[in-house]
Amino acid sequence: MEDGALPMLIAPPALSTAPLEVPHRLLMGPGPSNVPARVLAAAGLPLLGHMHPQYLKIMDECQAWLRYAFQTTNELTLAVSGSGHAAMEAGIANLVEAGDPVLVAENGLWGERVSDIADRYGAEVKTTKVAGGEVFTLGQIEEELRRHRPKLLFLCHGDSSTGALQPLVGMGELCHKYGCLLFVDCITTIGGVPVFIDKWGIDVAYTGAQKVLNVPPGASPITFSPRAVQRIASRHSKVGSFYLDMTLVGRYWGVGGPRIYHHTGLISNVYVLREGLALLAEEGLEAAWARHRQSVDTLHAGLERMGLQLFVKEKAHRLPTVSTVCVPAGVKWDAVSKFIMEKYSMEIAGGLGPTAGKVWRIGLMGANANPANVTLVLAAMEDALRHVGFLRRSAL
Amino acid sequence: MEDGALPMLIAPPALSTAPLEVPHRLLMGPGPSNVPARVLAAAGLPLLGHMHPQYLKIMDECQAWLRYAFQTTNELTLAVSGSGHAAMEAGIANLVEAGDPVLVAENGLWGERVSDIADRYGAEVKTTKVAGGEVFTLGQIEEELRRHRPKLLFLCHGDSSTGALQPLVGMGELCHKYGCLLFVDCITTIGGVPVFIDKWGIDVAYTGAQKVLNVPPGASPITFSPRAVQRIASRHSKVGSFYLDMTLVGRYWGVGGPRIYHHTGLISNVYVLREGLALLAEEGLEAAWARHRQSVDTLHAGLERMGLQLFVKEKAHRLPTVSTVCVPAGVKWDAVSKFIMEKYSMEIAGGLGPTAGKVWRIGLMGANANPANVTLVLAAMEDALRHVGFLRRSAL
Repeated sequence: MEDGALPMLIAPPALSTAPLEVPHRLLMGPGPSNVPARVLAAAGLPLLGHMHPQYLKIMDECQAWLRYAFQTTNELTLAVSGSGHAAMEAGIANLVEAGDPVLVAENGLWGERVSDIADRYGAEVKTTKVAGGEVFTLGQIEEELRRHRPKLLFLCHGDSSTGALQPLVGMGELCHKYGCLLFVDCITTIGGVPVFIDKWGIDVAYTGAQKVLNVPPGASPITFSPRAVQRIASRHSKVGSFYLDMTLVGRYWGVGGPRIYHHTGLISNVYVLREGLALLAEEGLEAAWARHRQSVDTLHAGLERMGLQLFVKEKAHRLPTVSTVCVPAGVKWDAVSKFIMEKYSMEIAGGLGPTAGKVWRIGLMGANANPANVTLVLAAMEDALRHVGFLRRSAL
Repeated sequence: MEDGALPMLIAPPALSTAPLEVPHRLLMGPGPSNVPARVLAAAGLPLLGHMHPQYLKIMDECQAWLRYAFQTTNELTLAVSGSGHAAMEAGIANLVEAGDPVLVAENGLWGERVSDIADRYGAEVKTTKVAGGEVFTLGQIEEELRRHRPKLLFLCHGDSSTGALQPLVGMGELCHKYGCLLFVDCITTIGGVPVFIDKWGIDVAYTGAQKVLNVPPGASPITFSPRAVQRIASRHSKVGSFYLDMTLVGRYWGVGGPRIYHHTGLISNVYVLREGLALLAEEGLEAAWARHRQSVDTLHAGLERMGLQLFVKEKAHRLPTVSTVCVPAGVKWDAVSKFIMEKYSMEIAGGLGPTAGKVWRIGLMGANANPANVTLVLAAMEDALRHVGFLRRSAL
């Protein structure tokens, strides 16, 4: 053949090639969440070419619904071909040039990640921190902006590692007063918590597919304000990543010039994103936000009735989509989550980063935020807490 | 709510939210290829958590089958969470540090892309070129290695923009003689054309899901030799990308230390990759290579009988998986592909990069490489060439 006589082949591994089967799990952790049947059905639709007109129409629909979900008119609104971390990195890669001062407000794991990424792209990274579960005030942020004069500020709207919801009203105005762009992680908030990209002056925001949108991970929405687009256009150097270069990815999504091929879009992932966004548009943002609010209020009341405490002390700063619940003294967190997985096939996660070993994380995201799931997760928690001896068998 | 009184909402777009439907297309272009029913079915399976033991087992299976497909024992063998371009960028991001001399052998569009990416990661990029449709000889490469003393050489094994198959035997040995690592694009070859990563001394190679593996794009296989792993370990600077940092992504795949969370793996994309790889293992590489060879021989003979010429003159250098067919003088390439799409719902692509406007590209990839498809594509081409007047109605 092409390369002459062939060497001996390494044999295939001794694994069963039987078709894949996966067990059902109720995913009540911080994501992924369960995927509605309609969305799963779209995953199994046949492929179209990544430049076929029928596929481009699906991309267009995604963009229109994403603008609604983000509450923006930003032209540069699309989905990055990767997980939420790819979208996070896309924000940094496009907005940061070597030597740029970047301020990262760290109140959980995601700020730490952004600091790491910004460092890799050559930024002069400054960080400001609050304890896990707390949030930044406008006053704190203004002081840091005045001190560091950053070109970019990162805030995490809903930090799934701590369960804190960072208030955003006024942050955009503040940043722009200091010539700074505002970059926000909305992974756990878009669709479940009010977010107004334009009215709140957010310059770049991204989310994930597998959280409130109830879509398998892979196509991660991101939006750039005209101010952010201008910043990219006035760069002195090429965007550090080719794969995530918005001047090229944007063109593939029909933004900034005639549509051109950049990479093979993640066709099936865009199908499912389209379905998740259509379902959100059908319900309407206000109804979805209210449903999440009702679900989490019921959840929190039930947890407190069992004698459990929430990790985020200030009620207004509790993220409705991911609740962090303190593990009581003397209880092993993983004995509880293991019991619930084994008996109920239900995922309740442990902590992450600053909350590792200290909390359980319970997610109510998208279609998973419903009365049946809240009832079941409370019953499972109660059963598990009896099992580990925190609640007496007769209690409640 | 959390952020005070809410502003007025932007209304959802006036789009039908009816469930997605997509038409069937026979994808006989350079990719994506059609996806077998078993693989599509796996796309619709419910999600598992990205750290659940059942999901980690699927990742392990993918790795084992990928080692077989790549014919390697490389421990650092996994799938990047993105399209083939993400895997291409992962190779550069991990192996290149600022100032490193990198030699890119460009014989089509993909070499140009690698040069662009390497430039973004700070490499001193040197290029050597041959005309589209031609390949590099060992002598040419040795001369360039001697002249530029690069730390990395890029070759494209199967260039889907030109239809050329680059011989690789001896290239690894040559690179290592000059202290250089060999980085190879195998997007269109793994599974369809013999590739022996270990025996041919290839240090880094990647492929795509949506070509010969017949899997929706999203999880792109890549493998690193111990020599490449050593190069990464001895870097002076962090890997330029966090998302593609193999010292972290490897750990998520259980390589290089205890498994740790890095990003949310593309769960459904890994399900389908597992199925595509299982099907390849069931058939066996030798049988798959032979089937592609038989299919393309029949295709080429049929095209030549119609009076068409192949773009790659040297028979041994024709890529079996993507054929480039010269557009005869006086024929509009897109009139033919449009006719075939409209009448047969079949994709035949035009040229790309150096072949734009000059060729049709016909793919025979994975399950699509079968006698029925070859017969149908020849019949469709003949019908189209009659339609545009290249063949007389009575011919053949």
